[in-house]
Amino acid sequence: MREIGLEQLLALSTGATLLGTGGGGDPYVGRLMAEAAIRRLGPIRLIDVTELPQTGLVIPAAMMGAPTVMVEKIPNGSEVRKAVEQLERVLGQKAIAIMTIEAGGINSMIPLAVEAELDLPILDADSMGRAFPELQMTSFHVHGISSTPMVVVDEKGNSLLLNTIDNKWTEKLSRTATVVMGGASIIALYPMTTDQARRASIPGTMSQALELGALLRDHALPTAEKLSRLLEKVRGHVIFHGKVVDVVRRSTDAFVRGTATFAGMADDEGRTLRLEFQNENLVAMINGEPVVTVPDLICVLDQETLIPITTETLTYGQRAVAVTLPCADVWRTPKGVETVGPRYFGYDFDPRSLTPEARS
Amino acid sequence: MREIGLEQLLALSTGATLLGTGGGGDPYVGRLMAEAAIRRLGPIRLIDVTELPQTGLVIPAAMMGAPTVMVEKIPNGSEVRKAVEQLERVLGQKAIAIMTIEAGGINSMIPLAVEAELDLPILDADSMGRAFPELQMTSFHVHGISSTPMVVVDEKGNSLLLNTIDNKWTEKLSRTATVVMGGASIIALYPMTTDQARRASIPGTMSQALELGALLRDHALPTAEKLSRLLEKVRGHVIFHGKVVDVVRRSTDAFVRGTATFAGMADDEGRTLRLEFQNENLVAMINGEPVVTVPDLICVLDQETLIPITTETLTYGQRAVAVTLPCADVWRTPKGVETVGPRYFGYDFDPRSLTPEARS
Repeated sequence: MREIGLEQLLALSTGATLLGTGGGGDPYVGRLMAEAAIRRLGPIRLIDVTELPQTGLVIPAAMMGAPTVMVEKIPNGSEVRKAVEQLERVLGQKAIAIMTIEAGGINSMIPLAVEAELDLPILDADSMGRAFPELQMTSFHVHGISSTPMVVVDEKGNSLLLNTIDNKWTEKLSRTATVVMGGASIIALYPMTTDQARRASIPGTMSQALELGALLRDHALPTAEKLSRLLEKVRGHVIFHGKVVDVVRRSTDAFVRGTATFAGMADDEGRTLRLEFQNENLVAMINGEPVVTVPDLICVLDQETLIPITTETLTYGQRAVAVTLPCADVWRTPKGVETVGPRYFGYDFDPRSLTPEARS
Repeated sequence: MREIGLEQLLALSTGATLLGTGGGGDPYVGRLMAEAAIRRLGPIRLIDVTELPQTGLVIPAAMMGAPTVMVEKIPNGSEVRKAVEQLERVLGQKAIAIMTIEAGGINSMIPLAVEAELDLPILDADSMGRAFPELQMTSFHVHGISSTPMVVVDEKGNSLLLNTIDNKWTEKLSRTATVVMGGASIIALYPMTTDQARRASIPGTMSQALELGALLRDHALPTAEKLSRLLEKVRGHVIFHGKVVDVVRRSTDAFVRGTATFAGMADDEGRTLRLEFQNENLVAMINGEPVVTVPDLICVLDQETLIPITTETLTYGQRAVAVTLPCADVWRTPKGVETVGPRYFGYDFDPRSLTPEARS
């Protein structure tokens, strides 16, 4: 067990932005929520999957919606609590731990506010090891766990309880409800036993976000040294050094889709990087050739500070370094590739990777 | 109490088509459902609101969706039963009667199949006295009754439980869910006490549909005589005699919208009737001037047989008589007009009526 206090929040949110691979929503908003909760109720307990009791109910909670909208609609902890409590009532059982479905982006922070509100520990794990745009893109799904019963609530007081025949139907029905609710909602889903949480989650991702964020925020380190330590820690690789020359971003009701083009600098002079994203960065192409794709992580860092840049905040002229981190092992399995590989997103090629080994 | 057997179904469905005012879905499909149920389980009991016990739970059940889709997706009684039973579980109480929210169109038939399945009587009442396209367009809404908790199920096995802050949110959230579910769903909503059902429903509408349908199906009567008896019975009026010269119908995901134009015949020679509809006929304009609008009923009958023609089946060349029936009194109240008057549908005028008195 470790505690997360105010002084860890900046590091956690920076690490979460990195794992957010451009999407997942800027954790800044989530950080404000968590800050308020910690100020009121004290530090948050982060427990390891091995510390879970033999039996009990674990409930993942998250925010759903297009990142553009999510950052405009700050939920308060009470909505998240409501979603979790409604799911507890449906199941006739109290949760013994809360977890996030994605350690990347704002959703790393959402459970923190509930923890404080409900006095429940947060599990040091998630179901993506990064951020992904759809609800069935979880290690829980790969392990055959149902996403329902699921509760969807909005800030106005509307709520939905879903029971579906499969996790793609959950995605479809909750996505459209979220759009109607104004583009963002709070969800509690994939309720599971502690045993399922141990088997089906990706362990250690919250503390990894914390650790990576602390490294990126370490202003004492020279940039080059910081970058090489980061890549060493996660077995990552530099994809490209370049300058943003074009960003096309289309916020549809449900997702942010688009592309960012980088003109190469230094060793990459004369080459072009094109990133395609759906909330998260999906594919990195150099001179038209895909070099890294989902499920691996594609992250854009500010060249000077190495602070991660989300697809929301990409702008013309930014100088950046694009790096890749290997995905969690679960995404290398056939069902993993089927669930989040490039073909699922409409590309006609198999996953490409510069980092075939597992992350740290 | 009266019984509805196989021999009453044709009359009931014809009367329901009339009250459907062009929309509500062709009751033919519902009739097949009810027929199957009656064949298996015997006749259906229709009880008057005055026969309701002092206390108890009444559950309205219906089909939701664009009529075009509804008639393609025949539900089986078991889906309707599932929706009702899920709502019973949420409320921790068994229903003592089922009712329809709209006596017009296919929804007059949906509860019949459940009645047989659940062995519950059907209430001889509804909440529209006709058909309307949206869920908050009910006398229940005018009386301040909440449409939630509401259950939405599809034929695949997905289900949703909604709790909303008001009935328009219910409409929005269940409508989009219905679209995602394939364009049609089965719903159980507006659960209420027998006391609320007595106060807030429109009584006698099922038996009225039966009676009017029997009259329209009486082949022994000459057409002119049949028409005058119909209009006398319901205090109705002829709007127009004409021939369909143009139909524009647009099936969006959620609704069928369009217009039908009739060239006048006989006394209406030289004049033009234009009907505008959203599932149901909303406005009748003669030579560009609105003469009848919602909430009054606008019905198109085949000139020879007087069998009602739905907006779905309107085709070029049909010779028809357009008639109007007065709406239920509840729709003449300020909240009634606000809920279903022409302004709600985007028209810039107040209701027009040829029949300001109440129906029979």
